[in-house]
Amino acid sequence: MSDIVTLDYGSGGTKTSRLIEEILLPAFDNSFLQELGDGALVPGNSELVFSTDSFVISPWKFPGGNIGKLCVCGTVNDICMAGGLPKYLSLAFIIEEGFSFSSLEEIVHSIADEAKRAGVAIVTGDTKVVEAGNGDGIFINTAGIGFRRASLPGQSQIAPGDCVLVSGSIGCHGATVMMARSGLLHDGDSLRSDCQCLTDLSAAALRAGEIRIMRDPTRGGVATTLNEFTERMNFSIELSEAALPIEPAVQAACDLLGLDPLYCACEGRMLLVTSPDTAGDVLHALRALPGGEQAAQIGVVTEKMPGRVILNTRIGGSRVMAKLSGQQLPRIC
Amino acid sequence: MSDIVTLDYGSGGTKTSRLIEEILLPAFDNSFLQELGDGALVPGNSELVFSTDSFVISPWKFPGGNIGKLCVCGTVNDICMAGGLPKYLSLAFIIEEGFSFSSLEEIVHSIADEAKRAGVAIVTGDTKVVEAGNGDGIFINTAGIGFRRASLPGQSQIAPGDCVLVSGSIGCHGATVMMARSGLLHDGDSLRSDCQCLTDLSAAALRAGEIRIMRDPTRGGVATTLNEFTERMNFSIELSEAALPIEPAVQAACDLLGLDPLYCACEGRMLLVTSPDTAGDVLHALRALPGGEQAAQIGVVTEKMPGRVILNTRIGGSRVMAKLSGQQLPRIC
Repeated sequence: MSDIVTLDYGSGGTKTSRLIEEILLPAFDNSFLQELGDGALVPGNSELVFSTDSFVISPWKFPGGNIGKLCVCGTVNDICMAGGLPKYLSLAFIIEEGFSFSSLEEIVHSIADEAKRAGVAIVTGDTKVVEAGNGDGIFINTAGIGFRRASLPGQSQIAPGDCVLVSGSIGCHGATVMMARSGLLHDGDSLRSDCQCLTDLSAAALRAGEIRIMRDPTRGGVATTLNEFTERMNFSIELSEAALPIEPAVQAACDLLGLDPLYCACEGRMLLVTSPDTAGDVLHALRALPGGEQAAQIGVVTEKMPGRVILNTRIGGSRVMAKLSGQQLPRIC
Repeated sequence: MSDIVTLDYGSGGTKTSRLIEEILLPAFDNSFLQELGDGALVPGNSELVFSTDSFVISPWKFPGGNIGKLCVCGTVNDICMAGGLPKYLSLAFIIEEGFSFSSLEEIVHSIADEAKRAGVAIVTGDTKVVEAGNGDGIFINTAGIGFRRASLPGQSQIAPGDCVLVSGSIGCHGATVMMARSGLLHDGDSLRSDCQCLTDLSAAALRAGEIRIMRDPTRGGVATTLNEFTERMNFSIELSEAALPIEPAVQAACDLLGLDPLYCACEGRMLLVTSPDTAGDVLHALRALPGGEQAAQIGVVTEKMPGRVILNTRIGGSRVMAKLSGQQLPRIC
């Protein structure tokens, strides 16, 4: 096999079989995939959570991860945020002719590693190849099935006094990818994507307290996701700028690029709204786990300006943080 | 909303919300989607069938369908072929900046129509937009969940004497798309893709007879799929050229393009291997349904040349039909 994917590898013929048998099956070894059927038979006996995401991130590799790790975390996290325990993933590639096999293998191994870590099985898949110039390296879709382990009340049960928490420092993924894309990253830079699966953190939060809603702030970042909580509702969320966990390297990158960390995507963080009396327990539980060390309360639910997200600044001012309008960061995931 | 999709529509912000609320939600109206969560909660209490496919077909519209109809049929059929009753689909778009909203709406409505016809609900989705020049119009991924209604024995239970059936005429999809791509189709041409959901036909076949295996011959066509049945097995499949249902327009198109209908994709046909004594009942059941009128027995399982597919020609010769090698028809689905 030469190091170049050609159109043949997406034709459904012998070369497709070779790709499956030589790269994919060994990486995702499980009995479901060995059947090589068009669909996977998976056991199910409770309420399911089903989710999908396509990943078109550019560049496909960045400090802290690559599109392979990301495509597992993204769908796993969507299932976790809906109260599901992720179990099965599908995996579909659209590869541009000319993409290297060594890159594909690197991606495939990242997928396998991350899936193993998250306790999910890749049970079915698909590969297409498009002509050079009609794609951009590699695009990946994952869909996932999880079993429901918690019923979240949702935004309608959020009430003034509730606490707004984040599980870790914000904007790392977006800032890192934009710096990588701009060619501004150097060896020794401390910037790293926060890309990680939230399976354990979300389970711990659900056990520790009364969670109204959980959401991972991906495209559009923390500000956009919090707006999704408040829109059309009769409460506001007030954020305290001083409480926001933002790493100095992320703030520096954002200053350089003209970005606001509150609008930068996270891929391994979650926002939670909890009852006032259980917020401390949830923070305690999150901080005890890897990736949750910097969990913090960043705001409260109030009646100040219903439907809005307000940032109370360090210098005593306040401003409305609207939903992301237009593109800040295209192809960030 | 102007008629052009811009990068904003994939950014996860306000324009993404507008796309969802103005185009997608109205088309796929159901209570799961109304939740607008990252994952859909679907009830499940039996063994599941889970499948995925990405669709990169060019051109995206062709006589008999478009990429929207196709992305429903493709995944629905994969679930049916695995013995599942399809119930839920995910839907993920990768759209090239500059693609028109009128085309997107046409596709979305085809998806909604076909999903309704097939009795499946689109329960979760995702939209990404890539820069002009980094995609090709539109790519779509669907993943699907079905509930198992039959346990198929699989290729290991195929035995000499078994019958090989096809549910309709072969090669229509591939021949139609290649003619459309080449600009050789004219008004009044009778060529049409066979693109259709196999939910009813597969259910009828399962009720009517003893089915060893079913598979829809998509990329690589009938010859490639039959090779997947025979490879590494101790039987051969002998096809009778005279029994192959091939429409004259398909044969003419293939002659013009230098293609063989046996290697042209179908998107609404299935190959079945049945016990000898139930083949007639299965054919009878298939022929009674729309899209099954031309169902035919096209071959038998023999011991003549184990592992191979052999075509017995009209003039009394025979030749081995190998698996598709290299690309015959890129981007056919």
